[in-house]
Amino acid sequence: MVGSVAFDSIETPAGRRERCLGGAATYFSLSASFFTDVRVIAVVGEDFGRRQEAVFQARNIDTRGIEHTAGKSFFWEGSYLENLNEAKTHNTELNVFAAFEPKIPEAYRDSEFLFLANIDPVLQRRVREQMPDVKLVAGDTMNYWINDHRPALLEVLKGLDVLLINDTEARMLAGNNNLVQAARAVLALGPHTLVVKHGEYGATAFFSGESFTPKAEGAQHHPFRAPALPLEEVVDPTGAGDSFAGGFFGYLASQGELTPAAFRRAMFYGSVMGSFACERFGTERLQELTRKEIDDRFIQFRELTHLD
Amino acid sequence: MVGSVAFDSIETPAGRRERCLGGAATYFSLSASFFTDVRVIAVVGEDFGRRQEAVFQARNIDTRGIEHTAGKSFFWEGSYLENLNEAKTHNTELNVFAAFEPKIPEAYRDSEFLFLANIDPVLQRRVREQMPDVKLVAGDTMNYWINDHRPALLEVLKGLDVLLINDTEARMLAGNNNLVQAARAVLALGPHTLVVKHGEYGATAFFSGESFTPKAEGAQHHPFRAPALPLEEVVDPTGAGDSFAGGFFGYLASQGELTPAAFRRAMFYGSVMGSFACERFGTERLQELTRKEIDDRFIQFRELTHLD
Repeated sequence: MVGSVAFDSIETPAGRRERCLGGAATYFSLSASFFTDVRVIAVVGEDFGRRQEAVFQARNIDTRGIEHTAGKSFFWEGSYLENLNEAKTHNTELNVFAAFEPKIPEAYRDSEFLFLANIDPVLQRRVREQMPDVKLVAGDTMNYWINDHRPALLEVLKGLDVLLINDTEARMLAGNNNLVQAARAVLALGPHTLVVKHGEYGATAFFSGESFTPKAEGAQHHPFRAPALPLEEVVDPTGAGDSFAGGFFGYLASQGELTPAAFRRAMFYGSVMGSFACERFGTERLQELTRKEIDDRFIQFRELTHLD
Repeated sequence: MVGSVAFDSIETPAGRRERCLGGAATYFSLSASFFTDVRVIAVVGEDFGRRQEAVFQARNIDTRGIEHTAGKSFFWEGSYLENLNEAKTHNTELNVFAAFEPKIPEAYRDSEFLFLANIDPVLQRRVREQMPDVKLVAGDTMNYWINDHRPALLEVLKGLDVLLINDTEARMLAGNNNLVQAARAVLALGPHTLVVKHGEYGATAFFSGESFTPKAEGAQHHPFRAPALPLEEVVDPTGAGDSFAGGFFGYLASQGELTPAAFRRAMFYGSVMGSFACERFGTERLQELTRKEIDDRFIQFRELTHLD
């Protein structure tokens, strides 16, 4: 996976944390590491030290693709004081990310699954082009790239099997407020599958044609919706979407065959990981999680939604 | 059931309709009529004639409790031009509803299920008190009663088994923005079960204690979420919530035993009926619906949510 490793200063109704370890690459890889081996491509500055490295090591995440360079790591400051569903950004400093040229270590070349987290689509495309033979490639993006870098983004979409974005982004990308119509328009741009994340209401997958990837077994043409868990307290929603993506894609990568049933379970595991991410600040909850807790919550998600 | 029979003038992105037959009692009873025998208590004016009566007759709905009186029927005018999830009210004329004194026909006295649609809680309570021995009583309300008639509403809540309201109403009633905490606070006010409707994201049921009614068989303590169907076009969302309630409660009334499994199916049937209601203006879609279409869509809802 390629994405950002960052320091985040976050304020929510539950409190405030200064410069905790964050970034899509961090949330995604911690989350995916419960299901499969994860290799990260990113860039960090001199403020990323042994303490931060240890967070990845503890989950056996391969960090050989994290480039260390002079300067400061990506920094984001935001709050969720009025609305837990949407971050208000106060400050973004690209820092070392501004000149990032992703390099794929030789040891990563046999990876079969590739995730392009939310970064400049030009960089997403460069990584994609260096990994032409992967079995499945998924990606994320955000409003900024959709609005201001559309041509570059459209090139990336052509090479994606699965695109994961939120409601607002799907509607914005399609220029259509109806979710079903927006999904069809987005699928026409390239991805075989679109996963739309609804925050506290879960996520819906839409499929183009009969299969969620040309290499998948079987057919899944009707949409599929995974719920989110009604949570007693949302401490910090930062990284919930990336944790969803990590659970979803990590679970898929752990499956021998990409069947529709495996895809549906992947949606549930995505929601499970997203729900854990919200329970504590930053990556705190993901760091201390166990596979047993994950599987127990998967059962809870089944009980929440299944008739029998 | 007791509720309003009304004329609605509605504008949505799909067009405009003048004075179509509406009101919670109309949507609820049409919807419930696909599952069980329905008896309505309401009041109408001289503008309610044979054409309107025929809509109820076609579905074998008992209208002996609809009082005809001098004056005009309840009238509502609203639009959904900016947001299909929330009506903007332009005009409300209570008309004959202002002096409504609900009377329960003798023929209705053996009803086992009672639904109190969104009307003045003082009236809801009077109906409830005249039907003390029903097996299950459910009700709805809205922001106006929650904010400006809270003491009367709280009296009604004490006598309810199931309360059905939307997200905003649940948070308003509880004075708490977290859905799980709000649900717990609402359940402490009386209802054994709270069904929170999320519009295009479905509905979630929360349970107090172990059973959804003291008279139910078995236990259902974890929340249950029914999805909504991703719709190609929402023509008119008016009455979707009342149609949900009609499908939900009508299905429950059709079941011999009030088991947790029957409750979960009822949630799905509620969502099914809500989805149909949105497909055409007013009650048009409900009027032409068949049980076969309903059961086909129930299967679609299962496919949308179930892992296997």
